[in-house]
Amino acid sequence: MLNLEPLRIVLERSGLDALVLVPGANFRRVFKQDFHQMERPLAVIVPRDGEAMAVVPNLEMGSFKPLGFPGKIFDWRDEAGYMGAFMAAGAALPQLGKGSRVGVEGQRMRVFDLFALQAALPACSFVDIHAEISSIRLHKTPEELALQRKAIRISEDALEATLGEIKVGMTEAEVESILLRNLFSHGADGLAFAPIVAAGDNAARPHAHARPDYRIKPGDALLFDFGGSYHGYSADITRTFFVKEVSDYDRAFYETVLAANAKGREVSRAGITASDVDDAVQKVLEQSQFAEFRRHKTGHGLGLDVHEAPQIMRGNMQILEPGMVFTIEPGLYRSGEAGVRIEDDVVVTEAGIECLTSFPRDLRLVG
Amino acid sequence: MLNLEPLRIVLERSGLDALVLVPGANFRRVFKQDFHQMERPLAVIVPRDGEAMAVVPNLEMGSFKPLGFPGKIFDWRDEAGYMGAFMAAGAALPQLGKGSRVGVEGQRMRVFDLFALQAALPACSFVDIHAEISSIRLHKTPEELALQRKAIRISEDALEATLGEIKVGMTEAEVESILLRNLFSHGADGLAFAPIVAAGDNAARPHAHARPDYRIKPGDALLFDFGGSYHGYSADITRTFFVKEVSDYDRAFYETVLAANAKGREVSRAGITASDVDDAVQKVLEQSQFAEFRRHKTGHGLGLDVHEAPQIMRGNMQILEPGMVFTIEPGLYRSGEAGVRIEDDVVVTEAGIECLTSFPRDLRLVG
Repeated sequence: MLNLEPLRIVLERSGLDALVLVPGANFRRVFKQDFHQMERPLAVIVPRDGEAMAVVPNLEMGSFKPLGFPGKIFDWRDEAGYMGAFMAAGAALPQLGKGSRVGVEGQRMRVFDLFALQAALPACSFVDIHAEISSIRLHKTPEELALQRKAIRISEDALEATLGEIKVGMTEAEVESILLRNLFSHGADGLAFAPIVAAGDNAARPHAHARPDYRIKPGDALLFDFGGSYHGYSADITRTFFVKEVSDYDRAFYETVLAANAKGREVSRAGITASDVDDAVQKVLEQSQFAEFRRHKTGHGLGLDVHEAPQIMRGNMQILEPGMVFTIEPGLYRSGEAGVRIEDDVVVTEAGIECLTSFPRDLRLVG
Repeated sequence: MLNLEPLRIVLERSGLDALVLVPGANFRRVFKQDFHQMERPLAVIVPRDGEAMAVVPNLEMGSFKPLGFPGKIFDWRDEAGYMGAFMAAGAALPQLGKGSRVGVEGQRMRVFDLFALQAALPACSFVDIHAEISSIRLHKTPEELALQRKAIRISEDALEATLGEIKVGMTEAEVESILLRNLFSHGADGLAFAPIVAAGDNAARPHAHARPDYRIKPGDALLFDFGGSYHGYSADITRTFFVKEVSDYDRAFYETVLAANAKGREVSRAGITASDVDDAVQKVLEQSQFAEFRRHKTGHGLGLDVHEAPQIMRGNMQILEPGMVFTIEPGLYRSGEAGVRIEDDVVVTEAGIECLTSFPRDLRLVG
């Protein structure tokens, strides 16, 4: 039988009357399996008191039933639509009445799921407790870390293979396609996200798209932000290279980001806050000659979601604890000219941190 | 300057006072570019009367600004959070007051985006008009069809290459990994969705996951439901093979699905409804000896979203028109034994349909 205890602990802490889980990272952590989120809603309602309810598309029943869900299941067929199943689940939860408060995953649940729940539980109010629900994934298990390590090793091997194939004159899109091929030939079973392969001025856009018509040329920064995934766990790695040659100015620019990255790896440890880490990293950038080119926080948690808690950001007073995994990815961006970002994935240990990524960081010329 | 006219036409038709677009397929169709949907909300508010407003994370400004958005932009930085920008955008829309109705993409927008909008426009009510907004993508342009054809050709070539490598005794996960490698070595730049590679009893689960410990054996059905994507457009193809040998019963089972698939391709044409197509296909299954093994509708639209309008489903009175692209994917599922699904992608033409997928459908033994 499936264990809903972690969710009941979240409920207890939050003081809410129920919470709802939809497919995604939290769902996968609890159910050890995920479902596509498309036009067919699937939702699990866990009340503080009483039995849990699930609304499940009939065509998923063959996958859902074996999970051992400890509660009532309301399945629905394409021809009938989903509202009947939501209404029946709501009727089976009479304890959720006027004044009841129901927590949902605000960054994951879609508006049409919410509207169906509001119709089924019309007296309830709905509250975004994405962070609280996601706290069940804050501390990674050894099994999770093993999968994350594997995703990272695959990704680093794919990057090294890609660098060996790069030539001046290739387009960004060609380089991206080489990287993708290498990720899957090295064993990735998915992508953490659509990779960013950006050269020259495009590298100054933190979330750039590879251009089919831009050819890399000597002196360009060449930024890769990418990750393969493996069994649901992802790498998220950024390295920036220079094509054939680098100016003294760009070298100083690169070394500043590298110093910020190193500072982040140096200060991170259990007991300090996420804010402390960002503060230390940002100060390196702020006190450099390149302060004006800062654009974003230091990093984010990494697990079944590629962006999750803890956000490594000033003001986030979350205390770091062993088992938390996050990125350290300072960057600097000179619009129209160049951008540099260097990103590592680390796990907090009893002794400090372990850096899961090991791809060399020293300035490297490619092509 | 970017053209918001298609959205204004949707507004006019819907009788609403404003609509909101978030990153995703509709956004991409209008802006010719997409943005990651993670912890940083990005939203575009288009009122019926007056100027459009955009709330944009500061780190995306380098990518957003060049798009030529014809309206005011409220950007926000990580350290400040997004609510200030939403409130400022709301204050700049005084025409959206008590009684105003705002349409949103219910299957795409997340609950925390909605909550931010509700705080910024507290007197407005929000309505799910996902279908109406998505109607801007119902009719594919020749450029879109060219990209879809390319995604399909890549995917079919990858499937053929994969079949050549399959051997009895491989696990489902090994076969999946061969398929993934072939997709990217043939030029895919993304995945339409996590592929389904399922054998034996697992093929009876419509959305199965490849098992690392199940080895394919003679007599197994072997189902592939997968697609590479190319520049945002996706293939969605299913073929089912049998490993080494097939029983007479399974052959009849297969031929029934194939007849339903053929019926769908035969009847589809402009002027009839999506319901008509599903009805014709389902009747083939219902009137067969395998009627009890039906599990789902015939298909769904296919474009920048892998599941979009028109849903090919009884009761959907949407009239098919030239330029609409959808899947025809009848299936039958004998729990614990085997499943067969055969899926093609078609585009409605003036003369009938053109079948975009051409991978052979005759029963084929592999391994």
